[in-house]
Amino acid sequence: MLNFYEDVAIGSRIDLGSWRFTSEDIIRFARQFDPQRFHLSEEGAAQTPFGRLCASGWHTACIYMKLTVARRDEAEKAARAGGTTLARLGGSPGFKDLRWIKPVYANDVIAYSTTIVDKRLSASMPEWGILSFLNDGVNQSGDKVFEFKGTVFVERRDKGA
Amino acid sequence: MLNFYEDVAIGSRIDLGSWRFTSEDIIRFARQFDPQRFHLSEEGAAQTPFGRLCASGWHTACIYMKLTVARRDEAEKAARAGGTTLARLGGSPGFKDLRWIKPVYANDVIAYSTTIVDKRLSASMPEWGILSFLNDGVNQSGDKVFEFKGTVFVERRDKGA
Repeated sequence: MLNFYEDVAIGSRIDLGSWRFTSEDIIRFARQFDPQRFHLSEEGAAQTPFGRLCASGWHTACIYMKLTVARRDEAEKAARAGGTTLARLGGSPGFKDLRWIKPVYANDVIAYSTTIVDKRLSASMPEWGILSFLNDGVNQSGDKVFEFKGTVFVERRDKGA
Repeated sequence: MLNFYEDVAIGSRIDLGSWRFTSEDIIRFARQFDPQRFHLSEEGAAQTPFGRLCASGWHTACIYMKLTVARRDEAEKAARAGGTTLARLGGSPGFKDLRWIKPVYANDVIAYSTTIVDKRLSASMPEWGILSFLNDGVNQSGDKVFEFKGTVFVERRDKGA
């Protein structure tokens, strides 16, 4: 993710860090974007098949984004401090196959990571390569709770000249 | 979405309402979940290919969820007032092919809708049917900016007995 196309190895994995979903965070997110009763209170959740307060799936996804941006910002700072620059990334056109596999309950700690599963050169834009990745989130018991697949454009070191 | 499986016609479309993405909303969301410079300020965005302040793609998705829950809540109130109940919906296992097609700029108004594209009975759970839907968001110029595909379990009126 943070290197030029040529430097990225298929199978490499980037740890994005962990996040504890507190009750307060879960409820604040739900009030803004997903006010269903299993996301709003323990009492409400107890009356549903979830049984306990759990995070909106969109919240789980948004924290993936938050951690990804933080990781990238850290790497940019380190690169600047070292007098180098990072490869540019293109925007994201979207993604595929997002799965909410298990609930994320209050106080669960989710460890997020990105794994590079494929790479290829762009047919139309010689300065860019395309990385395919699988992102996931795993809880403190080792259960995968979240994943999605996507692609991102990344700058080539060799500009295809 | 709001009726029993038997009552849902393939091709039917549900209007979920519209949302204006103000600068304040865009920046508040970005600070929480996606602090990239094209989502944080007009000045920062002017230095990027986006040119102007635009919403995080995850923000566009979260507003879809907000409007969907509001629509469902309204329908439940109306049903209760009329002495009837709505079909139960199952949880969402995830979705496919989310696309951010065009940027959502500050003050854009996005109209969201759900279209039922297929339906089938659940092979394993006779009380439930499965609806396939395409959700999208269209801006004030008529350009589609956002879409994704998914499925949801919905209760059958005829319980498969």
